[in-house]
Amino acid sequence: MIGDFQIRTDLALEVRESYDEDDVRIRGVSVEEQEDEEREIFTTVVRIETENGAKAMGRPVGTYITLEAPNMSAPDEGYHREISEVLARHLRELMGSDELSVLVVGLGNREVTPDALGPNVVNNLNITRHMMREYGRASLGEGHADIVSAIVPGVMAQTGMETLEIVKGVVEETRPDLVIVVDALAARSTKRLNRTIQITDAGINPGSGVGNHRHGINSQVLGVPVIAVGVPTVVDAATIVNDTMEELVSEMDRSDHMQKLGGTLGTLNKAEKHQMIQELISPHLNTMFVTPKDIDETVKYLSFTISEGINMALAGKKEL
Amino acid sequence: MIGDFQIRTDLALEVRESYDEDDVRIRGVSVEEQEDEEREIFTTVVRIETENGAKAMGRPVGTYITLEAPNMSAPDEGYHREISEVLARHLRELMGSDELSVLVVGLGNREVTPDALGPNVVNNLNITRHMMREYGRASLGEGHADIVSAIVPGVMAQTGMETLEIVKGVVEETRPDLVIVVDALAARSTKRLNRTIQITDAGINPGSGVGNHRHGINSQVLGVPVIAVGVPTVVDAATIVNDTMEELVSEMDRSDHMQKLGGTLGTLNKAEKHQMIQELISPHLNTMFVTPKDIDETVKYLSFTISEGINMALAGKKEL
Amino acid sequence: MIGDFQIRTDLALEVRESYDEDDVRIRGVSVEEQEDEEREIFTTVVRIETENGAKAMGRPVGTYITLEAPNMSAPDEGYHREISEVLARHLRELMGSDELSVLVVGLGNREVTPDALGPNVVNNLNITRHMMREYGRASLGEGHADIVSAIVPGVMAQTGMETLEIVKGVVEETRPDLVIVVDALAARSTKRLNRTIQITDAGINPGSGVGNHRHGINSQVLGVPVIAVGVPTVVDAATIVNDTMEELVSEMDRSDHMQKLGGTLGTLNKAEKHQMIQELISPHLNTMFVTPKDIDETVKYLSFTISEGINMALAGKKEL
Amino acid sequence: MIGDFQIRTDLALEVRESYDEDDVRIRGVSVEEQEDEEREIFTTVVRIETENGAKAMGRPVGTYITLEAPNMSAPDEGYHREISEVLARHLRELMGSDELSVLVVGLGNREVTPDALGPNVVNNLNITRHMMREYGRASLGEGHADIVSAIVPGVMAQTGMETLEIVKGVVEETRPDLVIVVDALAARSTKRLNRTIQITDAGINPGSGVGNHRHGINSQVLGVPVIAVGVPTVVDAATIVNDTMEELVSEMDRSDHMQKLGGTLGTLNKAEKHQMIQELISPHLNTMFVTPKDIDETVKYLSFTISEGINMALAGKKEL
Repeated sequence: MIGDFQIRTDLALEVRESYDEDDVRIRGVSVEEQEDEEREIFTTVVRIETENGAKAMGRPVGTYITLEAPNMSAPDEGYHREISEVLARHLRELMGSDELSVLVVGLGNREVTPDALGPNVVNNLNITRHMMREYGRASLGEGHADIVSAIVPGVMAQTGMETLEIVKGVVEETRPDLVIVVDALAARSTKRLNRTIQITDAGINPGSGVGNHRHGINSQVLGVPVIAVGVPTVVDAATIVNDTMEELVSEMDRSDHMQKLGGTLGTLNKAEKHQMIQELISPHLNTMFVTPKDIDETVKYLSFTISEGINMALAGKKEL
Repeated sequence: MIGDFQIRTDLALEVRESYDEDDVRIRGVSVEEQEDEEREIFTTVVRIETENGAKAMGRPVGTYITLEAPNMSAPDEGYHREISEVLARHLRELMGSDELSVLVVGLGNREVTPDALGPNVVNNLNITRHMMREYGRASLGEGHADIVSAIVPGVMAQTGMETLEIVKGVVEETRPDLVIVVDALAARSTKRLNRTIQITDAGINPGSGVGNHRHGINSQVLGVPVIAVGVPTVVDAATIVNDTMEELVSEMDRSDHMQKLGGTLGTLNKAEKHQMIQELISPHLNTMFVTPKDIDETVKYLSFTISEGINMALAGKKEL
Repeated sequence: MIGDFQIRTDLALEVRESYDEDDVRIRGVSVEEQEDEEREIFTTVVRIETENGAKAMGRPVGTYITLEAPNMSAPDEGYHREISEVLARHLRELMGSDELSVLVVGLGNREVTPDALGPNVVNNLNITRHMMREYGRASLGEGHADIVSAIVPGVMAQTGMETLEIVKGVVEETRPDLVIVVDALAARSTKRLNRTIQITDAGINPGSGVGNHRHGINSQVLGVPVIAVGVPTVVDAATIVNDTMEELVSEMDRSDHMQKLGGTLGTLNKAEKHQMIQELISPHLNTMFVTPKDIDETVKYLSFTISEGINMALAGKKEL
Repeated sequence: MIGDFQIRTDLALEVRESYDEDDVRIRGVSVEEQEDEEREIFTTVVRIETENGAKAMGRPVGTYITLEAPNMSAPDEGYHREISEVLARHLRELMGSDELSVLVVGLGNREVTPDALGPNVVNNLNITRHMMREYGRASLGEGHADIVSAIVPGVMAQTGMETLEIVKGVVEETRPDLVIVVDALAARSTKRLNRTIQITDAGINPGSGVGNHRHGINSQVLGVPVIAVGVPTVVDAATIVNDTMEELVSEMDRSDHMQKLGGTLGTLNKAEKHQMIQELISPHLNTMFVTPKDIDETVKYLSFTISEGINMALAGKKEL
């Protein structure tokens, strides 16, 4: 995390990276990395284990799994089934048992392209709760399938209600064993857009998501376990400018040539540098985001990869 | 109503019409008609006042107001503001008081054109509940405006939940004073499609709507008053065939010429005639509906007329 | 064909069927049927070989291939690849040679669900003409692939132009070797909706299509071969009523029981019967069509099956 | 214009601004400003009058009118009719005479939100050419209305054809007197997004538009006058970063305090500074754009304002 400055990211991984390399170990936070070379999927598990770790990371205790796959947003006839499978396995692990009743919540605004991930994912899910209630367990096929229901609650400007109010009402009425929330996230780096999936048992927390949720949606408020699945689809415009300028200023400290040019800029401390940069960033940028030119198509593909992963996880198949 | 045969209509008006002219008075049911010649709006109020009337009409006790306006589906620059105003007045009358907290529910499937009326109406509403909670009553402007929230619950195949479960959960969590449900209906006659609005304090009842709701959404189950606003957008294909054939068979009884042709067809009783007709109707027709060729555009216009009517009713203006 | 009466169908197959069984051979028209039991695809090839045959059939000389597959509109993970393959084979046969430059035209109105087949198909095509022009033949991969361009011209109410004018202009400017037009059709029987594909080298002719084209799009007017691919997605509402009533009247002639009931109805000739029926059909029905309740979803699936078939045909693979 | 560096903008106004204040007069280019205080519309007319001016400005000889209205993207019940009126007046002036046959071309990709302006505008136009041809001039109402046709050609990835090829084919087939092209543009400054309209008789030129057209669409290639109407909806992400960094570096030169910090950075010349900045900008940014968070809704509103302006201009009313 960058001093007192608010650089927005919803990825625990990026918060972790923002720490200088020398204080690489934060007490109460463990990091584990793993590479699947064949499938080109890089997995990082950040575990925030103590309240101290939670404070340092600025987010609640929990497991934060990040899948990075450079090819994720490239067109693929099979909609990246290999990624769906890895996602499904992580979901099953966090879920613990099967034959659960699961409510999937598609957060975000279906009318705003990079925020439509959640609603799109719900569109492609295999919904089974009504079949199960009408025809019994046999209708779910063999195996230990979960019972699946889903909702797209919309955003506050459309409903006048907090997303939390709607989800809470539906949870209390239908009593699922588990809630999975799917949401579009903001990242800090454009390099992560549309090629990263974060899976966490910490739920959704205030301030996160493209639309910036005002209230958390997590096990504390809902009374049942909550798993959140998110993909970063935007970077705040101010963040991107800030980061390039940080680089410029750092470069001035590092390189001999630049140091000569940059003069005593290097004598400023971190906070002073930020101050200087913030003053130069146009206030207009606060209502802007940066997004890839092909975001409309990419969100469609990604949604399919995510929904297939959830479908596999909830189908109760042994082979996962 | 036609003997034991299930001719589907969601309009109380059409149920009433199905009675033969000679038993024009049904005990417990009153009918009142009114014509606004200038605006070309024809209003019928059917009041089902007793349980006997409810049984005869096949629907619950309540007031059923039908606005018929032949021009409603014609393009109009002002989106038929005159109809919105009449709708607003009827809504206010059924609501009784103002400064209520109102939840509007847009029923139906937004992916199926003639069923998308409810979701479309919600898209155009002035939502105020979140403003009111953030900035207080002043944010609603002058007058006695209501506090408005809204939800599009989706259909069972999308959610795995009964619409009722979702609405009930949200009502219990957010405690509105009143619920308005908006839905696309099935009519019996193509003449009424897209030019008729039914407003009723009886709510939505099982079997109604384009998608055929399995459970009612009414004051009994929700514990608060429920007003339903509906527009017929489809006719069941079997209904349309049945009706033309009924006419053929009746004609054979009536006209001299036809009688000669029709022979003893006239000696069949009502039930026998229906039997014969039903046998001829292709079972394929049960999964088909009849809808105007311009339904996509018309549903958009109609939705706007309805949402403007609701907006006016809830804005608390004196002049209505 | 039914006397002077205009029963609308765009399927040559249905025109052929409308002839009485006893005059089963029409001079100048040959019919060939074939069943693929394994894939459950039934193929009928109607060849109109002479002007006499053309007059009897009410459509131009040419080959009309109809694929009927009852499962076509059922959801399928592979989007009915088996049907795409059969379609691709027929297309290649009609095309004659490969390495052609092909313009695909998606007819119809993308805003009207059952008319959106053509525009949807174009959305899923592999477009290669610009690649070929930029990077040369190698960019098309191995084999004898065709060069593919495509256009969605829109309908006259949107453009103010005849579809033909737009297509003609584009053909003259870009000079393709072949044009493939894709369109949604009207059938006579609901049994054929969304489960039938007609492929013909006669192009599109006046009066056909859901939107009823005013001018033909065929090799005569464009100066290059034109293959039309169509799927019936609607039945005119008047047609459906007419057909059920025809059945009623015929039944009265046939069955003993009905004959007694129907009296001398049987003494009417064909034309008189039609007259009687037409008088009973509500004029409202002329602006209505009958379509399956799940048309929105079905059109999406079907479009994918068709576009995959065209993609296969134009990819120049040997194995077809 | 900034040395040899390619900062992308489609607004002639922004090119003009990029010149230093001291060489404020460019030969062959005149600038005229005007403020409508009541309506809060600021108009700038840049006239490129000579080839020398054209070279300096990097775009063809012609009149470039820019309307800036800060409120343009704010929601408004009348869809900013006041702006539509000013747009209509400028269009009529550039058109010269009335009773023309006009083809409107909606450029851009309807599937990519900020590029969908052109297709959306065409959706709302009053199309009259087919009426005129069917029912004669009287069908256009009183006054000197123009005859309006329109097309949405799509983008090269969808059609395999240059937009120019399609437009040229349609122009040659239908022979309009005038072409109006509507397109979404890239601006240099986020302050101009969605609140600026550029109207020019120079047509569309290579490299402009959100999707970066490869060929111009102008009177030279089409043989009839071409008026282009554009609204900037995106800024290239690299541009935004570049501009903030330019500011940082300039600031280092200017302010005493910064100069001390910035050392000899000030001794770099313009080109050297740019070099340095370009090296720091992530190559990822080249596939990204910056766009307001409410772009989906804003593009809908803006499209309506533009289409109403065009409708007014072409309706032949005297009062404009």
